[in-house]
Amino acid sequence: MKFVTDEQVRRHVSFAAVLQAVERAFIALDSGTSSLFDVVRGHGGGEQHFFAIKSARDGSVPIIGLKAGSYAPGNHAKGLAAHTSTTLLIDDATGHPVALVEANYLNGLRTSAANALATRELARKEANTLAIIGIGGQAVFEALAVLHVRPIQRIFAVGQSPERRRAFAQQLSERSAVRVEFTDAEHAVREADIVVTVTPAQAPVLKAAWIKPGTHISAMGADNVGKQELEVELVAKSSCWVDHAPQAIQIGEMQHAYRAGSIKLEQLQQQTLGALLRGKAQRPTDLQTITIFDSSGVAIQDLAAAQAALSCVCST
Amino acid sequence: MKFVTDEQVRRHVSFAAVLQAVERAFIALDSGTSSLFDVVRGHGGGEQHFFAIKSARDGSVPIIGLKAGSYAPGNHAKGLAAHTSTTLLIDDATGHPVALVEANYLNGLRTSAANALATRELARKEANTLAIIGIGGQAVFEALAVLHVRPIQRIFAVGQSPERRRAFAQQLSERSAVRVEFTDAEHAVREADIVVTVTPAQAPVLKAAWIKPGTHISAMGADNVGKQELEVELVAKSSCWVDHAPQAIQIGEMQHAYRAGSIKLEQLQQQTLGALLRGKAQRPTDLQTITIFDSSGVAIQDLAAAQAALSCVCST
Repeated sequence: MKFVTDEQVRRHVSFAAVLQAVERAFIALDSGTSSLFDVVRGHGGGEQHFFAIKSARDGSVPIIGLKAGSYAPGNHAKGLAAHTSTTLLIDDATGHPVALVEANYLNGLRTSAANALATRELARKEANTLAIIGIGGQAVFEALAVLHVRPIQRIFAVGQSPERRRAFAQQLSERSAVRVEFTDAEHAVREADIVVTVTPAQAPVLKAAWIKPGTHISAMGADNVGKQELEVELVAKSSCWVDHAPQAIQIGEMQHAYRAGSIKLEQLQQQTLGALLRGKAQRPTDLQTITIFDSSGVAIQDLAAAQAALSCVCST
Repeated sequence: MKFVTDEQVRRHVSFAAVLQAVERAFIALDSGTSSLFDVVRGHGGGEQHFFAIKSARDGSVPIIGLKAGSYAPGNHAKGLAAHTSTTLLIDDATGHPVALVEANYLNGLRTSAANALATRELARKEANTLAIIGIGGQAVFEALAVLHVRPIQRIFAVGQSPERRRAFAQQLSERSAVRVEFTDAEHAVREADIVVTVTPAQAPVLKAAWIKPGTHISAMGADNVGKQELEVELVAKSSCWVDHAPQAIQIGEMQHAYRAGSIKLEQLQQQTLGALLRGKAQRPTDLQTITIFDSSGVAIQDLAAAQAALSCVCST
């Protein structure tokens, strides 16, 4: 049994390696060779400690495993990160544990890998202006993911906290020469070819009227009942893509448009990231269409990222 | 983060330590300070690899955590144990991982600890003859658990495999001077004051007519839909106790009597091991009543056992 620390992941695991593993995993999910098990949700003690377990079988390796994830906002006061993720990989045939991977940093890579893949497939090739709505810990991962797949020249970022602005700009500058400009949501979105929302919002953070034709939106925030970043009107008129349709309509951005009757489960089941990656489905040929990717996060991403990490760390 | 191996558990963790931790956990469960999260069930590859995740918050510590458990009968051909268990303990306030505990041997202790506690509370004080139905890997743990709480003089064991008979007798003799006699189920049960069933049966393995008045039965086998060791008629006429009532009627021995209408959920919710241990409920005063404990296995046992193991190993 192997043990991979967060520090080892930060040092040795590249975004490209995670991206490749996550792509393979989404293709397997859409091919029917993988299966997602039920998500567990519970509470720890302390100030609002939300606990979840996501587990799956990735048939493309094959391997089974789980990610235990916590969100404890009270951690900030203790100088600790609010999000904690730990991934356990288990042998597909025997059930014996294979590795435990500290997945705090890795979780940022695995989530933004889905964004990178969706943006690569859905955004216009020449898209060069990015708006990032929300500047928490995940925002830099998402910005770098888009930079990985499109020739971004300008980044507009939206968020009020001076401390977070400094951290975002600092972390981005360590990895990229692209300049970031902090502004309001309307200005950012009106300028952008690609919009990434990465907030814990429970009401729309951008208006349908602001979005230019041909914009691609990656909605990364919604991963629980009640979360919402986009107006239903915007979802209804766009070409919508999801990581996993049954989950998207329950806890993803799609939950609101689904409940409003603007979007059908059957339609989303055809429009998955996996289908797009394996060429079974295509983005709209009309480049004026707005595209949306709704990422609610699935366990096969965690399993794939943990395997990539294990492979990178063990080969060093 | 600490890592406890199976070998460390075998060397340093006593049954008494696990018993004490499991008792505390069942009391907390009945007191409402703990909560069990939903059980996840899935499949790995290979020959019938069944995978489950049980998770909970043990409010008495407090701590949260999960056990990933596999049953892969194809392992036997590879010289590996069919059951594998791995427990992850997580800080209740922050969500940070505390320890990973290999729980293969520990799982035997945690399961039999529930049997020991129930037998201690339910069996007649002078009970001295034990029948064990089923002689797989868990059977020795169960026999030793009963020996821990009652002055057993004779053990009748039921199982056909010569290899398993040898292993059972050998392992028992390493820990106890009590003689074991292999016989058929009817003879064993007619002689016994205490009966433990520990089989993967999907149909009754003992008949109501064989059971003497005043016998205590620990039904340890049923932990999934369709599993059954006792006749419904026997359950219906006995005083029945459970680890967790909602689970007992779904996947425990009680599922059959519940479906037949012979037993009610409300009744079982009063007759839990936790209620018995904290003195909120009492066993029948009539010593002729047959008592049954239905163990379907809950995550608080796993969390308690893992903490006991961590404490024993870290203090060595």
